[in-house]
Amino acid sequence: MNQYKFEDIVEGLSESFEVVITSNMMDNFLKISNDTNPLHIDVSYAKEKGFDSTVVYGMLTASFYSTLVGVYLPGKYCILQGIDIQFSKPVFVDDNLKISGKVSYINSAYKQIEIKASIENQKNQKVSKAKIKVGVMDE
Amino acid sequence: MNQYKFEDIVEGLSESFEVVITSNMMDNFLKISNDTNPLHIDVSYAKEKGFDSTVVYGMLTASFYSTLVGVYLPGKYCILQGIDIQFSKPVFVDDNLKISGKVSYINSAYKQIEIKASIENQKNQKVSKAKIKVGVMDE
Repeated sequence: MNQYKFEDIVEGLSESFEVVITSNMMDNFLKISNDTNPLHIDVSYAKEKGFDSTVVYGMLTASFYSTLVGVYLPGKYCILQGIDIQFSKPVFVDDNLKISGKVSYINSAYKQIEIKASIENQKNQKVSKAKIKVGVMDE
Repeated sequence: MNQYKFEDIVEGLSESFEVVITSNMMDNFLKISNDTNPLHIDVSYAKEKGFDSTVVYGMLTASFYSTLVGVYLPGKYCILQGIDIQFSKPVFVDDNLKISGKVSYINSAYKQIEIKASIENQKNQKVSKAKIKVGVMDE
């Protein structure tokens, strides 16, 4: 786990990691959210709507933005304050996602940073992008 | 599950539901995200940082915004396009959350609606608010 302190952080500092989406993740997200929308659990419904298979919950993929800030950038001293996400492509089970973030703004008065982040799939298609506001706590 | 069609939806239409946060949800979110930030899993660290206990992942609570749109408003024909969330209060295990949303804008050209949503805890404190953009698919 990274442990960037506020004074270590500069604009442009970036981090990334990869993750493969599993059906276990889908089951666990369903258990948390109880979001039973058929687009995410009924293959024939998803196909009827024009998708290759059931679509991974957008908010499941968004959980990796939590990991991006909580583990990588800034890591340990992170506190998540806000996130603005746009979803642009569907994600499917077995997709290999790369989650990337870069510090785009530093607010010294509030020890707050803004991170521009995105998630790309194994075809280098951007599936979502986000602006994330996090506070950096003292050690 | 609600099945509002685009033509059924009017500004001001609202839905809400309640959920109690469990430690199982925390375990499942950790399994999905691998977000091992100690604020969410180490009670003594969380207390050191001024919290009463470990803090529930903000993005775990945000998964209920997925449920709000995917099950309640509009429900079945929903497709999530974007979400802008601000977190304002910490959430803890055993908190009883009320998730509410109201249609604030309707875009007929794109069959897209905007929902103003919020989550309140059992003390009627707003823990987060969100603007959610969803498409409404044809039946």
